[in-house]
Amino acid sequence: MADPRFYSVAGPFTLAALAKISGARVGSEGVVGTVFTDVASLDVAGPTDVGFLDNKLYTDDFAKSAAGACLVHPDLAAKAPSSMALLLTDEPYHAYARVARSFYPRAPMTAAVAPSAVVGETAVLGADCRIEPGAVVGERTEVGRRCHIGANAVLGDGVVLGDDCEIGANASLAFCLVGRGVVIHAGVRIGQDGFGFALGPQGHIKVPQLGRVIIEDDVEIGANTTIDRGTGPDTVIGAGSKIDNLVQIAHNVRLGRGCVIVSQVGISGSTKADDFVMMGGQAGLTGHLVIGAGARIGAQSGVMRNVEAGATVIGSPAVPATEHWRQVATLAKLSRKGKKKGS
Amino acid sequence: MADPRFYSVAGPFTLAALAKISGARVGSEGVVGTVFTDVASLDVAGPTDVGFLDNKLYTDDFAKSAAGACLVHPDLAAKAPSSMALLLTDEPYHAYARVARSFYPRAPMTAAVAPSAVVGETAVLGADCRIEPGAVVGERTEVGRRCHIGANAVLGDGVVLGDDCEIGANASLAFCLVGRGVVIHAGVRIGQDGFGFALGPQGHIKVPQLGRVIIEDDVEIGANTTIDRGTGPDTVIGAGSKIDNLVQIAHNVRLGRGCVIVSQVGISGSTKADDFVMMGGQAGLTGHLVIGAGARIGAQSGVMRNVEAGATVIGSPAVPATEHWRQVATLAKLSRKGKKKGS
Amino acid sequence: MADPRFYSVAGPFTLAALAKISGARVGSEGVVGTVFTDVASLDVAGPTDVGFLDNKLYTDDFAKSAAGACLVHPDLAAKAPSSMALLLTDEPYHAYARVARSFYPRAPMTAAVAPSAVVGETAVLGADCRIEPGAVVGERTEVGRRCHIGANAVLGDGVVLGDDCEIGANASLAFCLVGRGVVIHAGVRIGQDGFGFALGPQGHIKVPQLGRVIIEDDVEIGANTTIDRGTGPDTVIGAGSKIDNLVQIAHNVRLGRGCVIVSQVGISGSTKADDFVMMGGQAGLTGHLVIGAGARIGAQSGVMRNVEAGATVIGSPAVPATEHWRQVATLAKLSRKGKKKGS
Repeated sequence: MADPRFYSVAGPFTLAALAKISGARVGSEGVVGTVFTDVASLDVAGPTDVGFLDNKLYTDDFAKSAAGACLVHPDLAAKAPSSMALLLTDEPYHAYARVARSFYPRAPMTAAVAPSAVVGETAVLGADCRIEPGAVVGERTEVGRRCHIGANAVLGDGVVLGDDCEIGANASLAFCLVGRGVVIHAGVRIGQDGFGFALGPQGHIKVPQLGRVIIEDDVEIGANTTIDRGTGPDTVIGAGSKIDNLVQIAHNVRLGRGCVIVSQVGISGSTKADDFVMMGGQAGLTGHLVIGAGARIGAQSGVMRNVEAGATVIGSPAVPATEHWRQVATLAKLSRKGKKKGS
Repeated sequence: MADPRFYSVAGPFTLAALAKISGARVGSEGVVGTVFTDVASLDVAGPTDVGFLDNKLYTDDFAKSAAGACLVHPDLAAKAPSSMALLLTDEPYHAYARVARSFYPRAPMTAAVAPSAVVGETAVLGADCRIEPGAVVGERTEVGRRCHIGANAVLGDGVVLGDDCEIGANASLAFCLVGRGVVIHAGVRIGQDGFGFALGPQGHIKVPQLGRVIIEDDVEIGANTTIDRGTGPDTVIGAGSKIDNLVQIAHNVRLGRGCVIVSQVGISGSTKADDFVMMGGQAGLTGHLVIGAGARIGAQSGVMRNVEAGATVIGSPAVPATEHWRQVATLAKLSRKGKKKGS
Repeated sequence: MADPRFYSVAGPFTLAALAKISGARVGSEGVVGTVFTDVASLDVAGPTDVGFLDNKLYTDDFAKSAAGACLVHPDLAAKAPSSMALLLTDEPYHAYARVARSFYPRAPMTAAVAPSAVVGETAVLGADCRIEPGAVVGERTEVGRRCHIGANAVLGDGVVLGDDCEIGANASLAFCLVGRGVVIHAGVRIGQDGFGFALGPQGHIKVPQLGRVIIEDDVEIGANTTIDRGTGPDTVIGAGSKIDNLVQIAHNVRLGRGCVIVSQVGISGSTKADDFVMMGGQAGLTGHLVIGAGARIGAQSGVMRNVEAGATVIGSPAVPATEHWRQVATLAKLSRKGKKKGS
């Protein structure tokens, strides 16, 4: 059970209700009226818990689990223990997300502006916002309805937030326009000047950065990530994109819709990624690239050239994935051969 | 035009004035009295805007641009549209920096200490500082004239800032002496203990870190970058160096003047870089190295040995650039050959 | 001498006292009654200072040093200048740590809650805590004795801290239980939702993250590091582990006791590392791995497979260290050969 110090559980739900919530169908052994009280991972779940199996690595846990019910792909159903009710679905993780959100809905938020928050005289706060202690809302800043601004977060002058945004503790936003339902985690930095210098041996001259950061609806941005504002054009994060912690996004970068950017990725200035591009952790992209829709960039890749839509690249410098793995195998083989000769 | 929510444009300026400001000369088609009202990028600029062409990737945008004037290298002038006035210069980006700063001068700052800022009784604030809400200035801390301390930033006890410094929101500085004209972006961490432990199987013993961080004049430090204080010697960032976001600089590192450190670089303890060293994004350097003046370290490099002045290295482990690219080509070739044989 | 603006020196100590403090023995030339007033690095130390030699790179500094005394391994004693008293020990760095802590003990802390700190009505503060200006302590939060909460730090609702913890400025903690003697540096983010999304072409669905972060005793966590809470299971940092700056630790990661994680490492979700694992800077680990006790992971490695206890791996993809260096040598050799042929 989730620690009651931090979480409140809703429910219970019958198996039939869980099937409806999740879009799964009840397997042949399930009794639709059975009542479930919580979600849990398969290794610790008990008879009133619902688990899920998505990553096949955990099939053994599934086969041995005491979970009362489990969301699972039909192909793996045969491995279930006999006591387990199955909720069959082609997308167990999506189904689990829906079930877990039913047991643990977003906690209700009490609207309030903390006495120690500082809200600019010309700022406009929408209805039902919660502004935590020490938060600072600048002049002419506009905050939508039902926004939650974390403790000691700072919204600079002129910033705009849509409805239902969550801004984490100690985050700071400036020079940006943010859509609806955006989640910005603690310590995120948005809108500072990009790294714009005219370099030279007599010293580096700072180039004014005159753009903004545009964050579209339903974006989520991980803790301590940094997104610089544009130089004149804007930096844009497309709707529904999900960005992990400690990512660096430079000036004028444009991400399309639904991009997934894993932790510690760095994207250099003016690179554009189309919709649903995925970038693995610690990947780096040089500037002024074009990454096609649905492209996948492997973890730790160093991308120096444009990537076509749908392509998968990896390595530093990044090449098509099949080529990369062939190179890795080739080097391993040659190295072993050299060892044999040398020994 | 830059969003008036965030920026105020100055001007207008005549072509003659822009030539003077930028140090460029007016091309043969230009009319010196023509008036310009703004800067803009070439793809969106109109007849009263000034653009610039620096990166040849954008030559097509230049050839098709509706910009009234453009800062451009004489070698590319022939590609200009006939309606465009040219401002010819060998350094278009430097020239643009000066023009952009004329249209968008630094906003005037109203000196004030916000009521919710906390300034230590023994702190000394220079004239005309602006201290934003929630900022904390420690005891015996000295802040120069015309400094701007961002909301919820924290200056620890004893910290010294020179004149004209800008400290971003939520930044924290401790155990450091900072020169004049230094820009420290939001969320930067300066002066915490370095990672100093005497490691051992019975546990790791913390070693007191007794140095400082010295930041010389005109340094700029990007958002969420971390700079640890020295162990006894100091960590030093040389005058005019520019450090991007999310960079890690360990204890006792010394950077010379004018170094350029791109995002997510990590420099291990006691490594010294001489003047005007450039490090590409995500490069990592092991400790106790000496990097010669003007050396260039490629993105994602892993530098494990000293680098000579003027050298360019890349790769992990880093080798001279020509050698690296030859290795990359060799492996690609051998891998293709292996594939042919195998198929 | 350490800058008195930031540090107060204790002492002086006789050579005999230093031997006792450090566990070293006095070399044949040392006079036990000689008095020492400070520690210093060998290149700047004078006759009343104590230095240490640990890294052989600095043997020349040792041979030329004016330090009055030096902690040194017996094997290197012969290189000492004749005027230097030696403190002989097999572990000079450990010994130095103890000596330095005697000259520079932790500054005494005056217990106080700053007027601008905001402490929840239902929070419980232990005796003798110091809460700096602007810090926010949530509801039902429990803070142990003698804790020091930095300026503008945020402890979320329900968070528990053990005795003698130090929380840096602008750090934020949520959904976590923290042991005794834990040091969390400025800007650290603990307990935010992990990167949990059920991905799909119709949009990425957020999966509730229902676990916590458990931080055991004597852990230290570097500036701007991020540690996500578990999905249901917890994220756990084992006792005595030391984590450097800008590290990313994803949901459900478990580190054993005494792990050492250098700056900018990224550990993906559900990876487990056993006791005393070491990870070099910028290494990345994919998810769901098992890393055996005492394993060593080289800097910039990309670890995609389990690592056995005691093994050393490096490279991207990571392989056993000997294999990696043989691959590096093989490629360099083949590349030179190709060049010769081609020229």
